[in-house]
Amino acid sequence: MKITAAGGYDAVGRNMTGVTINNETVAIDNGIRLDAFQMYDGETHMLQKYKKKDLIDMRVIPDYDSLRNVRAQVISHGHLDHVGALGVVQPSVPIISTHYTAEIGRKEYNRGNYYSCDYNEFFKVSPDFEVEFVEVTHSIPKSSIVILKTSEGTVVYACDFKFDDYSEIARTDYEKLKKIGREGVYALIVESTRVKERGRTPGERVVREKFREIIEFIDKGLVIATTFSTHIERIRMIMDLVEKTGKIPVVIGRSLSKHTGIAEQFGILDLSPNARVYGSGKAIKNMLKIINKMNKNERSDYFLLVTGSQGEPQSVLPRMVNKEFSFNFQRNDSVIFCAATIPVPINKTNRYILESKLESQGARIFKDVHVSGHASREDHRKLLNLLSPEHIIPCHGDMVMKGSYVGLAAEEGYELNKNVHLINNGLSVEI
Amino acid sequence: MKITAAGGYDAVGRNMTGVTINNETVAIDNGIRLDAFQMYDGETHMLQKYKKKDLIDMRVIPDYDSLRNVRAQVISHGHLDHVGALGVVQPSVPIISTHYTAEIGRKEYNRGNYYSCDYNEFFKVSPDFEVEFVEVTHSIPKSSIVILKTSEGTVVYACDFKFDDYSEIARTDYEKLKKIGREGVYALIVESTRVKERGRTPGERVVREKFREIIEFIDKGLVIATTFSTHIERIRMIMDLVEKTGKIPVVIGRSLSKHTGIAEQFGILDLSPNARVYGSGKAIKNMLKIINKMNKNERSDYFLLVTGSQGEPQSVLPRMVNKEFSFNFQRNDSVIFCAATIPVPINKTNRYILESKLESQGARIFKDVHVSGHASREDHRKLLNLLSPEHIIPCHGDMVMKGSYVGLAAEEGYELNKNVHLINNGLSVEI
Amino acid sequence: MKITAAGGYDAVGRNMTGVTINNETVAIDNGIRLDAFQMYDGETHMLQKYKKKDLIDMRVIPDYDSLRNVRAQVISHGHLDHVGALGVVQPSVPIISTHYTAEIGRKEYNRGNYYSCDYNEFFKVSPDFEVEFVEVTHSIPKSSIVILKTSEGTVVYACDFKFDDYSEIARTDYEKLKKIGREGVYALIVESTRVKERGRTPGERVVREKFREIIEFIDKGLVIATTFSTHIERIRMIMDLVEKTGKIPVVIGRSLSKHTGIAEQFGILDLSPNARVYGSGKAIKNMLKIINKMNKNERSDYFLLVTGSQGEPQSVLPRMVNKEFSFNFQRNDSVIFCAATIPVPINKTNRYILESKLESQGARIFKDVHVSGHASREDHRKLLNLLSPEHIIPCHGDMVMKGSYVGLAAEEGYELNKNVHLINNGLSVEI
Amino acid sequence: MKITAAGGYDAVGRNMTGVTINNETVAIDNGIRLDAFQMYDGETHMLQKYKKKDLIDMRVIPDYDSLRNVRAQVISHGHLDHVGALGVVQPSVPIISTHYTAEIGRKEYNRGNYYSCDYNEFFKVSPDFEVEFVEVTHSIPKSSIVILKTSEGTVVYACDFKFDDYSEIARTDYEKLKKIGREGVYALIVESTRVKERGRTPGERVVREKFREIIEFIDKGLVIATTFSTHIERIRMIMDLVEKTGKIPVVIGRSLSKHTGIAEQFGILDLSPNARVYGSGKAIKNMLKIINKMNKNERSDYFLLVTGSQGEPQSVLPRMVNKEFSFNFQRNDSVIFCAATIPVPINKTNRYILESKLESQGARIFKDVHVSGHASREDHRKLLNLLSPEHIIPCHGDMVMKGSYVGLAAEEGYELNKNVHLINNGLSVEI
Repeated sequence: MKITAAGGYDAVGRNMTGVTINNETVAIDNGIRLDAFQMYDGETHMLQKYKKKDLIDMRVIPDYDSLRNVRAQVISHGHLDHVGALGVVQPSVPIISTHYTAEIGRKEYNRGNYYSCDYNEFFKVSPDFEVEFVEVTHSIPKSSIVILKTSEGTVVYACDFKFDDYSEIARTDYEKLKKIGREGVYALIVESTRVKERGRTPGERVVREKFREIIEFIDKGLVIATTFSTHIERIRMIMDLVEKTGKIPVVIGRSLSKHTGIAEQFGILDLSPNARVYGSGKAIKNMLKIINKMNKNERSDYFLLVTGSQGEPQSVLPRMVNKEFSFNFQRNDSVIFCAATIPVPINKTNRYILESKLESQGARIFKDVHVSGHASREDHRKLLNLLSPEHIIPCHGDMVMKGSYVGLAAEEGYELNKNVHLINNGLSVEI
Repeated sequence: MKITAAGGYDAVGRNMTGVTINNETVAIDNGIRLDAFQMYDGETHMLQKYKKKDLIDMRVIPDYDSLRNVRAQVISHGHLDHVGALGVVQPSVPIISTHYTAEIGRKEYNRGNYYSCDYNEFFKVSPDFEVEFVEVTHSIPKSSIVILKTSEGTVVYACDFKFDDYSEIARTDYEKLKKIGREGVYALIVESTRVKERGRTPGERVVREKFREIIEFIDKGLVIATTFSTHIERIRMIMDLVEKTGKIPVVIGRSLSKHTGIAEQFGILDLSPNARVYGSGKAIKNMLKIINKMNKNERSDYFLLVTGSQGEPQSVLPRMVNKEFSFNFQRNDSVIFCAATIPVPINKTNRYILESKLESQGARIFKDVHVSGHASREDHRKLLNLLSPEHIIPCHGDMVMKGSYVGLAAEEGYELNKNVHLINNGLSVEI
Repeated sequence: MKITAAGGYDAVGRNMTGVTINNETVAIDNGIRLDAFQMYDGETHMLQKYKKKDLIDMRVIPDYDSLRNVRAQVISHGHLDHVGALGVVQPSVPIISTHYTAEIGRKEYNRGNYYSCDYNEFFKVSPDFEVEFVEVTHSIPKSSIVILKTSEGTVVYACDFKFDDYSEIARTDYEKLKKIGREGVYALIVESTRVKERGRTPGERVVREKFREIIEFIDKGLVIATTFSTHIERIRMIMDLVEKTGKIPVVIGRSLSKHTGIAEQFGILDLSPNARVYGSGKAIKNMLKIINKMNKNERSDYFLLVTGSQGEPQSVLPRMVNKEFSFNFQRNDSVIFCAATIPVPINKTNRYILESKLESQGARIFKDVHVSGHASREDHRKLLNLLSPEHIIPCHGDMVMKGSYVGLAAEEGYELNKNVHLINNGLSVEI
Repeated sequence: MKITAAGGYDAVGRNMTGVTINNETVAIDNGIRLDAFQMYDGETHMLQKYKKKDLIDMRVIPDYDSLRNVRAQVISHGHLDHVGALGVVQPSVPIISTHYTAEIGRKEYNRGNYYSCDYNEFFKVSPDFEVEFVEVTHSIPKSSIVILKTSEGTVVYACDFKFDDYSEIARTDYEKLKKIGREGVYALIVESTRVKERGRTPGERVVREKFREIIEFIDKGLVIATTFSTHIERIRMIMDLVEKTGKIPVVIGRSLSKHTGIAEQFGILDLSPNARVYGSGKAIKNMLKIINKMNKNERSDYFLLVTGSQGEPQSVLPRMVNKEFSFNFQRNDSVIFCAATIPVPINKTNRYILESKLESQGARIFKDVHVSGHASREDHRKLLNLLSPEHIIPCHGDMVMKGSYVGLAAEEGYELNKNVHLINNGLSVEI
């Protein structure tokens, strides 16, 4: 069995791993590295303007062509760094995922043979490969740990996941994982993004408490929150707590509109009847103009959920501070960041610019209403103990992150180069 | 009216402010700066070994003698940086505080004329001064915002506080503060420690959620937690959640024993009948020896709450890793830090050493189960709006912290050197 | 006497201080804060597109109109943060500076009544004000400490300066400063940018050693260096050491062309006959195209000095990596950064992007061939001891920087609010 | 051929690598990790108090016993992290080094069979192994790149080194390295400590310029400098420049006394006749007492070079601020740190404490008069190009450092796990 690092093994983003047996390969994930793209194009999300080869050189997409004889493209979940390159690299082979993830793919990258299954169903790729998805909690609905049953043993791909046992929209199927572990796992390919963080990753209930305290605290002005568009559980929680304040919730932004729409379609989100959603440029403009004309009292009856948590120039909140709408912030307006800043230089600076402008325009800022979607060290140890794999390949991280996983594995009895393997983008390991 | 910075205006710690009218002074707080002391003496807490003058030069205690004609010593709450110098600088004047704080003083620094009152009672110091305590939430029971009614107007001393509206052991008396504000506040002396942090400080319920997730997660081994000995609300919460696991809770450490004792005496803490508390050196030794001899099953029935959250060498947890007891950590033992590392170099290194040793001895570490006890920027804005003081003097911080408060005050219409004043230790401002 | 903070007292940049006596004001410096501008406009340097009022709100230029009855505009030296707002805020009063600085003003901001003098000449503004410039070392030629002789005493404005006693193009006139000190200084307005750095700021000879070691080390490929266009002493040194390698030096960039031109005109720089300078867009394009077509040997005969040390997108080096020229980097090409990254988020990210692209295109990077142009703590102490001013007003910095100067002044016997004064933008102090 | 990581492959310090052929092993280096030791024992350097097994568990010394059938112990140079464990782990086999390094070993760790050679001489260990030392610049005299000629090819051990072509006491034998490269290198074991630093490491001439500027700048008070005791080239430079000021130089400290003594014995250092050296506790005490009693003029005639650059509590400078001598700092005394703080938590805090006390006692501080002794990225590239090894094993670093070397090697055409190998302490790689 050969495991190939097509992307995601040098830095966080643009994930793709190949699993090859008997000269047939299954590719898992096909994502982009957005911050690498933003180095070249800070203003748009238009990957289509660039050639595939250039995007690989720019380190934006994985090198699909480094994989030989691909028979299936599996997608673990619907985040951009796992699915976002489907618009550029269109595999002609079946694209296999859960139904929800497939819907994201279809909506955004319409060409492609999407096949989808429920958790615990099988998809037979070839005599050598069978795919199954196991439910796991993460920061987007219907995430999965991918199980690849192969003629040379079971490969488990756990990238990305966290363990949140109080999630309101998902659960981790520990029983299934334990069963798979008992039956024998040959290789575990596992994200390493936060394995250097001690302890466990807190659950969404912590965010709920923090958001509740803030929304109850603010006593005047327009309240604006921003979060990741794909984070439906958090959006649910926000809308639920806002509902209790009696404010009218307005969802603004193309991406938020799309993802809340899919979540409603799947019955995971149920926006209240008085909620409004604006996704088109024109509708957004109009709505912000209307709010801008309101008097103080009317204004403070509204709550906006907008895109722009990372300060991306083309999203709603940055465009609001840049005066691209007929909208002015007022003293006592509040902005709640229900998202951490993804810790890369581009995002840190975009957020710095956004926050600086918000403050200079009089807004009050509430930050860090957030918990990570990635497993911490002890969560990883738990997965390791559930699965007891023969081999481990840490992925989705730089050398520090992957090296930290090697350290954890060593604590559990694994040995570097013997049964835990470090590979970089473009390299393979035969096990 | 003259406000004098006797301590706490150059760095966090050793708080003391003098308020002088008609040549009479009331001193508020009398604390130490522990990390300054640890620069000279890393192993003990024995301030008594040093001369008062030397401790001032070492920047460990405030300069009480810089205040002229002190008529009363008010103490806002029982933290070391507000009360800890009473053992060295023993004012012969009345020491006035809430009952709980007075009890801490009596237990630890036995000489001294302690006078105490309930919230909303008055203590008449002299014709010019009357003291009152207003209830406020903080990370120790019976904290107060100090109200000094003087012949030249009301002085409010808010150092330290946070606003936690879901606290289970205290409430903030917003009505009273509003009333005081309406009646007119001449000067607000206010902590600035975290005013540069955007938003609000989360409440203890966030800690509860985090701790719950961890204690439910750990499935084997001895569980040890550590937190600040004075933080009774957190200790209550820990004991409550541990109770639900069926584990036998054992409280270990001189300081924990003292403070939980006082809290029980005041009815604020009610340890369960099967909890045990060990404060003396000998008892601690015995108990750890007993646990060390248990088999795996017995061992995992126990839960220890110990001192040492800052890695101070003379407290229990550091002494455990330093093999000063007949105790060995085992693989799968867990240590939960219910405290942040106070961000000064000494503490950071002490914690680094402690964590390094814990890991090399096989323990699993859970960190950051903590929220701050200090108000953030928006909490401060709320207090400012409740009180509308004529003058503001930021205290309890370095120039960055005090300067951040100046920035906040400017947003609310105040002007540096006109009605918001920056002073350093040893200096006064006449207002 | 009233000192007014029109700009530069909240963050580094957009310097302007007003000195008012008998209702007449002299404004000193009139600069921009480039990183604030880049928050709104990352691609251009076109301040002219914006209204004056908006640029003040954007914190890009000082608030000239906050000064009443301005009679003269003094400029201390030709850096953008001291002179760059002249293009937007055009005072109709005399603009007074050294000849070199005036030439920079005339070339770039052509309207305006420029008056210039040599060091030690006087310019009589009014019965109350006389201006004189004292020579001092800094990172641009013909910098000055400004002496304002007024009817109420001498004001010294030392912003910016360093003490480099081995400078090859300037000297500090210690004798003159000592004499001014002996005669009595009423107020010192002094930059605080690096007063928190212990010790002294190293001189340019350190940069010379570092550059020499690198240029001698590189044995193949095209060598490119970048530095601040105004830093003529460094450019001289670079050209001198490159000369010794036999390489053909090519200076590329509008700003480099302008400033080396002025320096040559003033006899401060003497480019070798085989050096070439390209400032226009077309010439730059052509030259880079020619170099790109060379074979390896020819290519390694060239040395380029280009703009873009801060990664500003519109300068030459960033445009080279962005493929805006017919130029490709080759393996073994080297880029030497003879400039630190100015420590603000925008610049840090621009440099990060630039370096990432350089590396992904195969270039080798040499960094930190730089020393600061700003005085450190002990340099400041020396100035203080030379001048013994009655009052001190720290400028050119945020609260941390200004507060650090207060700390230094306290060591030398000054007292906050008595004879060392903290003011923020928009505020004044009467002394 | 088997390469075994006995120490130094998880963090900087306690270096030891084993090279095994035909069941015979040569051990290279045998150092300690001082900061790991200081976690357990902050006050002394008494490793002898601890058992060998405990010191391994404490991560202070390498695991010599993990190597089988050791036939020789080679020492590359005399730094503690390469030689310091000889006092604890006393190999009975020949200990082979340059003469200078052997003298350090003999003086400090007297038991042991020391054998020493000149550069370019051979030492025959066994039919399979021959050792040779190649001259290279580093921050201690007579450092070497170790050449191990084996029956299975040449192994080069380059740990530690820098390239300083202006060194006054050493040179790098590039010709020899080139020759070895041409003849074929099978494996390069190479330090990775600073490979992530772009560019090259500056030479000692940079330090000379910085020190000169400072020593010429200080115009009164006692001047004290501190540096690494083993750094003879820097000490030479300091003494030379101090000589020119006419001050009387006094060298104080056990370790300084020992190492300057060895350097004089080898003719590398030639202290001026009026220099004095005090190494014994009593002599140090006396000398400091004498200086303390001098009047201002006499006092400013002296220059002290003392131990304590890392703030280690048992060295001279920390003991001076801790009042362990009859010595008081005076206002205007200066302390020059001719050493960076080694970037580990213990040292950072020790230095913070030392500097805080120096400042509170009135001393002026000059910092960062230092350049690293370790090669940077481009220096490493040069060595790689000189040697063209078939295999590379990065050592002397954590995963970040070793991983950075993998990145550099990839730029030069190497591939992880194929011809560049990552190993951790306790692991081996067969090549």
